[in-house]
Amino acid sequence: MLYIIGLGLGNEKDITLRGLEAVKNCSKVYIESYTSLLSFGLSSDGLSTLEKLYGKPVTLADRETVEEKADAILEEAQESDVAFLVVGDPFGATTHTDLVVRAKKLGVDVKVVHNASVMNAVGVCGLQLYRYGETVSIPFFTETWRPSSFYEKIQRNRALGLHTLCLLDIRVKEPTLESLCRGRKEYEPPRYMTIGTAIEQLLEVEQMRGESAYNEETLCAGFARLGSEDQMVVAGSMKQLLTVDFGAPLHCLVIVGETHPVEEEMLGFYTLGGGN
Amino acid sequence: MLYIIGLGLGNEKDITLRGLEAVKNCSKVYIESYTSLLSFGLSSDGLSTLEKLYGKPVTLADRETVEEKADAILEEAQESDVAFLVVGDPFGATTHTDLVVRAKKLGVDVKVVHNASVMNAVGVCGLQLYRYGETVSIPFFTETWRPSSFYEKIQRNRALGLHTLCLLDIRVKEPTLESLCRGRKEYEPPRYMTIGTAIEQLLEVEQMRGESAYNEETLCAGFARLGSEDQMVVAGSMKQLLTVDFGAPLHCLVIVGETHPVEEEMLGFYTLGGGN
Repeated sequence: MLYIIGLGLGNEKDITLRGLEAVKNCSKVYIESYTSLLSFGLSSDGLSTLEKLYGKPVTLADRETVEEKADAILEEAQESDVAFLVVGDPFGATTHTDLVVRAKKLGVDVKVVHNASVMNAVGVCGLQLYRYGETVSIPFFTETWRPSSFYEKIQRNRALGLHTLCLLDIRVKEPTLESLCRGRKEYEPPRYMTIGTAIEQLLEVEQMRGESAYNEETLCAGFARLGSEDQMVVAGSMKQLLTVDFGAPLHCLVIVGETHPVEEEMLGFYTLGGGN
Repeated sequence: MLYIIGLGLGNEKDITLRGLEAVKNCSKVYIESYTSLLSFGLSSDGLSTLEKLYGKPVTLADRETVEEKADAILEEAQESDVAFLVVGDPFGATTHTDLVVRAKKLGVDVKVVHNASVMNAVGVCGLQLYRYGETVSIPFFTETWRPSSFYEKIQRNRALGLHTLCLLDIRVKEPTLESLCRGRKEYEPPRYMTIGTAIEQLLEVEQMRGESAYNEETLCAGFARLGSEDQMVVAGSMKQLLTVDFGAPLHCLVIVGETHPVEEEMLGFYTLGGGN
């Protein structure tokens, strides 16, 4: 049996009782490390917080491991119970769907243990989850690569009065261009997009397109370390949020659509100068 | 302090360690009973499963209690730690946002413990969460009240190739019309909309509007008891799903938009005649 277990957003205490029970019964435990493990106490001395809680070793699985060694993991899961831990909810990222597809093809039973994800935890700011349109991803711009397909999506959502969740780029274990050329793998240091960078990129694209999908006065909500003890939520215009230091990653951003009175009242508590 | 704690979707074991710790430290524990407690072992003999796990009594709070007695609950929370338990994630329903707004106005500190909600757990069928448009609610039609504002929303989502999550009506503790007239409160038995009823209503509205937003061949995914041990997921056309017995509530429905190859492969496992 392959258990795919969501860890939630904050720290090791955000696993569910059902999830913890499954981990304790598994003979092997993997944890995906290609999104973010920032808040899970995973220091270089080896996953100590989680391992202490689970009472067993945990193996880090980066994207390469999962993509290249999936068959080995799934073979283990044919013989015994294997846990694959995922930050947030298991189906936040396509890669986990891939793993499930492979498992099912091999006839390995899969059980999923759900948990909170960014997609629902942003509800904390008071904007109703059913009033969101399509979610967009904001990738890091480079000198030569400045994709902006998010622009039309935001534009459409706003035309319908809907809120837009912007997921901000995470670059973990990206091979350096140099090392790729040499055929030897060396990695860039991890990078996590800040709300400031996201807004700068958004405004750059708006200036280029000039179709008034949004502007620097557009109301947004910025989230840092969502679901953690020290989470930070601030509502304000894009221009205002550019001046806020949101601190350590992860960050995400919501571009606010049309609001109802209860949404406004709740958002008011997070507004700059309001009583956050 | 007021703790608003998500219980997740399955049963008492879906609370997080963080949530359980908070409940254990609270002097008073309420649980909202106006959405659905079907799977949480809440029999008429009084919340036994949860109370056993928590080691303390749990007070059922129906919509009336929360709306009429919120101030009393919040007064308690000014003096001591109070837990308010919510099925799914705390911000699935507007009522909980109301409670937070009231608490903040009274200067009561609020802590939220997130959990899985239907909004992210539907990811289990393989359709990517970021490719959903606006969520719609399908209310029970009556002889005289057949609202269909969901139609335009589904139409817009489908025009953009997006999936649509349809939340199906739940009627718990609705006063009977007769009792309202008499000024004495008697309640209807609880009703939970099935996938079959939802599809019938959807097709009725399509027939009335005739704008081809969808039809009986439109691919959908039906979910029953999502997140529970005995959850059921079946993909098929509206016509096909009408023939499926999804069993006990809760049900929800996704109308599938344009699909990517990984989405199709995963959905294939749930297709009628596929290897569910």
